[in-house]
Amino acid sequence: MADTVRRHPSRFPAFIAALPLHNMDSAMEELKRAIETLGARGIQIFTHVNGHPLDEPQFEPLFASMEAYDLPIWLHPARTAVMTDYPSEQQSRFEMWWCYGWPYETSVAMSRLVLSGVFDRHPKLKIITHHLGGMIPYFDKRIEDGMALLGTRTQTEDYSGILPSLKRPLIDYFHMFHADTALFGASRGLACGLDFFGAGNVVFATDAPFGPVAATRDGVDHLNLEKTQLEAIHHRNAEKLINMRIA
Amino acid sequence: MADTVRRHPSRFPAFIAALPLHNMDSAMEELKRAIETLGARGIQIFTHVNGHPLDEPQFEPLFASMEAYDLPIWLHPARTAVMTDYPSEQQSRFEMWWCYGWPYETSVAMSRLVLSGVFDRHPKLKIITHHLGGMIPYFDKRIEDGMALLGTRTQTEDYSGILPSLKRPLIDYFHMFHADTALFGASRGLACGLDFFGAGNVVFATDAPFGPVAATRDGVDHLNLEKTQLEAIHHRNAEKLINMRIA
Repeated sequence: MADTVRRHPSRFPAFIAALPLHNMDSAMEELKRAIETLGARGIQIFTHVNGHPLDEPQFEPLFASMEAYDLPIWLHPARTAVMTDYPSEQQSRFEMWWCYGWPYETSVAMSRLVLSGVFDRHPKLKIITHHLGGMIPYFDKRIEDGMALLGTRTQTEDYSGILPSLKRPLIDYFHMFHADTALFGASRGLACGLDFFGAGNVVFATDAPFGPVAATRDGVDHLNLEKTQLEAIHHRNAEKLINMRIA
Repeated sequence: MADTVRRHPSRFPAFIAALPLHNMDSAMEELKRAIETLGARGIQIFTHVNGHPLDEPQFEPLFASMEAYDLPIWLHPARTAVMTDYPSEQQSRFEMWWCYGWPYETSVAMSRLVLSGVFDRHPKLKIITHHLGGMIPYFDKRIEDGMALLGTRTQTEDYSGILPSLKRPLIDYFHMFHADTALFGASRGLACGLDFFGAGNVVFATDAPFGPVAATRDGVDHLNLEKTQLEAIHHRNAEKLINMRIA
């Protein structure tokens, strides 16, 4: 990809690097190579690493480095049918793991990062979530008021110290994420998610070649945004995120 | 509850019955007793029965009977921390199973019922979902266009016959559900969910005593609905669902 960008800068102005995280020492070396040597303008990771959540301390150097580079992390869900929906079944059937499982997994990963204090330690960290932030915008009050009772539903662990350990109200941290518009077009979720994250934190995305480019463009156009907001979503926010002006 | 309704009809105009489904022969007897003898105006069930999904053929008599009674089913999620979020962990941590797992499970249960053809067999079946229909409204296009590819993501089962077996487009069936307003108050999801289901299919609910009554009432009030729409959500829809005019 670095070579493609070098050879065709007008069509491919930048690239981001895939970063495997199963060995953090090697991952940090590869991160340095991808960004400092090859010129990647961000990285993509997944919502879990071989089944491990991203709030495990081993992944902390990644978030510290990405904040220091001032470059974004794209956070894509990774769930497969292996995560079953019913105890009586071996696998998630009818592709529920894809349809709802992916946004679910994104929401859990976002929440685990927030609850682990990643944004207190790294307030300038830039994370781009897919599918317009998963379930967060629709369930904002469930998070705000329902999670205020964190710990009261659990006997096996003591969660009483978590919320007091955070510097800000829980819901505030969810507004610090960026989110893309990949909702398969003119979804009802577009207006809801845009209202939650704000035009400054939403970036146009189609998941192309899988997602519908024209339908997503039309969906965003039908939100009746101001021109500056549309420009922000279409390219200005992305330029800010990757610290690069694109002609 | 039947006794309470009989003694205090002005405060408790109706009740619905809990219906355990672990033994369907007994469940059908109890259903008949609850409705025909005790006067229950609907039943509440959960999104799975001892881990089994509701689209298993054993539960079919329930849906047939409830359609025949012309009375609604309340469908509440049942997930606990047992359903883990990460393969490396034994349980769902930080109450993610509650915050996002419940709406996830509602969405999967709705989808499984739809895909099994329950609304083709029982077009007048009335099902009330909680938390404003879970993830369905926000991800309506993901269902509509993403699930149009059902089967292409799966090698272990052949799903190619499912969508062609349904009489109508997949997304149409999701509009046949009813949904309650229990989103912890003035959630951004309220407008999104109301737009999806329509004022005729949304019923006021607070999950009281757990949920915030005043905040939910205020949230619905702030949607700037017409008076007839508000009345529908607050009580007319419920009256239609349970076939009973409440003074």
